[in-house]
Amino acid sequence: MINGHGDDLYRYADICYNFSSNIYNRFCHDGLYECLAAALPSVTNYPEPSATALEAALAGSMGIEPSQVIATAGATEAIYLIANMFRRSTSFIFQPTFAEYGDACRIYEHRIKPVYSLNIATEYAAAAKEDSVWDERPSALFWLCNPNNPTGMVIDKEEMVRVVSSHPNCLFVIDASYADYTSCPTISAQEGVALPNLILIHSMTKEYGVPGLRLGYLTAPSALAEQMRRLRMPWTVSALSMRAAKYLLDNKAKYQLPLEELLRQRQRIADAFAATKVIDVWPSDSHILLCQLRIGHASALKDWLAENRHILIRDASNFEGLDSSFFRIAAQGEEENSILINAVREWINQLMTNI
Amino acid sequence: MINGHGDDLYRYADICYNFSSNIYNRFCHDGLYECLAAALPSVTNYPEPSATALEAALAGSMGIEPSQVIATAGATEAIYLIANMFRRSTSFIFQPTFAEYGDACRIYEHRIKPVYSLNIATEYAAAAKEDSVWDERPSALFWLCNPNNPTGMVIDKEEMVRVVSSHPNCLFVIDASYADYTSCPTISAQEGVALPNLILIHSMTKEYGVPGLRLGYLTAPSALAEQMRRLRMPWTVSALSMRAAKYLLDNKAKYQLPLEELLRQRQRIADAFAATKVIDVWPSDSHILLCQLRIGHASALKDWLAENRHILIRDASNFEGLDSSFFRIAAQGEEENSILINAVREWINQLMTNI
Repeated sequence: MINGHGDDLYRYADICYNFSSNIYNRFCHDGLYECLAAALPSVTNYPEPSATALEAALAGSMGIEPSQVIATAGATEAIYLIANMFRRSTSFIFQPTFAEYGDACRIYEHRIKPVYSLNIATEYAAAAKEDSVWDERPSALFWLCNPNNPTGMVIDKEEMVRVVSSHPNCLFVIDASYADYTSCPTISAQEGVALPNLILIHSMTKEYGVPGLRLGYLTAPSALAEQMRRLRMPWTVSALSMRAAKYLLDNKAKYQLPLEELLRQRQRIADAFAATKVIDVWPSDSHILLCQLRIGHASALKDWLAENRHILIRDASNFEGLDSSFFRIAAQGEEENSILINAVREWINQLMTNI
Repeated sequence: MINGHGDDLYRYADICYNFSSNIYNRFCHDGLYECLAAALPSVTNYPEPSATALEAALAGSMGIEPSQVIATAGATEAIYLIANMFRRSTSFIFQPTFAEYGDACRIYEHRIKPVYSLNIATEYAAAAKEDSVWDERPSALFWLCNPNNPTGMVIDKEEMVRVVSSHPNCLFVIDASYADYTSCPTISAQEGVALPNLILIHSMTKEYGVPGLRLGYLTAPSALAEQMRRLRMPWTVSALSMRAAKYLLDNKAKYQLPLEELLRQRQRIADAFAATKVIDVWPSDSHILLCQLRIGHASALKDWLAENRHILIRDASNFEGLDSSFFRIAAQGEEENSILINAVREWINQLMTNI
């Protein structure tokens, strides 16, 4: 890890409304807590070194083979595993985006090239040596987050499949952590494993609202997954998290995102912010909203909201390519969102009064 | 991870006596369970990305600086972090030992040289280029587990300090996971951070009997720790494990190992096994006992004990340099140990009858 991160809730004693992490925070976890309470003595035994049972359960839930799944300690371990597997490669990273792709690539000595559109990326890819399949390693890696963090934007699925299929010499790494948070079509795990040059990263953190458990996984064709499996540390998923993962998969029905409502709420916030004339909102296809202040600093807004209204937002200034005017929020329930909108308006009013 | 591991309890439905992992299993965890039960909602928030608060607490408990501690997901993450930091180095690994040093070094492209005694190692070190301090990287790394797994042996402390101090061009990595399990003096964390070319690996798993939590840490001079910190993934320690770690440090008094009794028990088992004339026992300075069958295979003994007596031992045949005649046990309570001794005698009797 090189740069800072979003959900710094642990820094604050009295946050009541957390818009800072991109996670829906209104799931009911009572069943999960019961399951974990009963499983506490599992802390006295080693978990499975390679999370084989969890990988089989994940594969079953997606209709793919266990050999096509690697369970990881959050999506983060998947990112580092991929960067490690292809160390010293050329990596194109779509910006602005989650900092860990770049950090992991820097740690594993990749040559990093930021890119800002799929068209430009495909030109690069076309310029790279075109083999039908790579020999020892791909000509280049392309890292995308889709839906993207911090913008919430989704790349057209057909276009994405076309680009991946037509560049077999390149490896595409798509972080699908937010796939549940959009109504736009995206490449599923089942579709993904059929593409020999695509790895998908998934996040139980986002799917089930449980960032504290550190649960993620990647899906890839067996041949690729098998190579990465050998680089993985043993026992990265704790015994309790392993037990929790089984519960979550068995109780997926309890974790249905109210997606339509969430997207409606995101639009309501976007409209309210835009109406202030002080905030530019970026287009989004998910619950995530990237916002830019025309006056003032995101850090000042963040501090004011935390101190005066117990609200946490994400200062987005440390995303590559963004500056101190950017902040990010993730839509939550209607009532919370109203509290956010009103508080932001209030801050803007004070700001305008003081000018 | 490349090779297999010890505690494969998860494979068996009905083990009652687990001698397979090197962990004392009779601590009372009631307070820990209460603490975790109250902390379950922490799964809905991200833990601290770098476990800063945990590192401060660990440093406080050892009387060193927070900058000299890196909290990790088990000792394993520490091993991989060190191997990653010094990738493509020459690594001398004392054998037989825990497989992960070798696996981590292979993954990070070290040139691996197995060594079998400290004298030989120091000859290598002397032959390596001697700078007072290394420039870019050490001339070589030396990996030792002390007390060692699977032998339980401890290297003389004065000799160890002398070797480390007199080879400033080399980096020594000592896995001190079992330091609590011996009465022999070993280098403490406080003494260790004063040596610029020494990293100590520690294991809360072993100190508190909680392998399921995945809690470990390394201690090193600040300069070394700082470099490694940058290579670490964020959020490797789960929110519940973080909470548990705080509880364990605050309640260290409840986790006092009955060391004298444990060493006495180890000796009782060693004597009983030796008296069978069928088992050679290696000398040990800790609760760990490496045993070699003069006839029969360790895997057959292991299977018989699991199937017929609900006892799990460690087939040690996959340790480098050992073969199918080796098994390992860790002494537990008196009653359990008697059950183990009797069951092993029984198996030997059957074996002898069938010859």
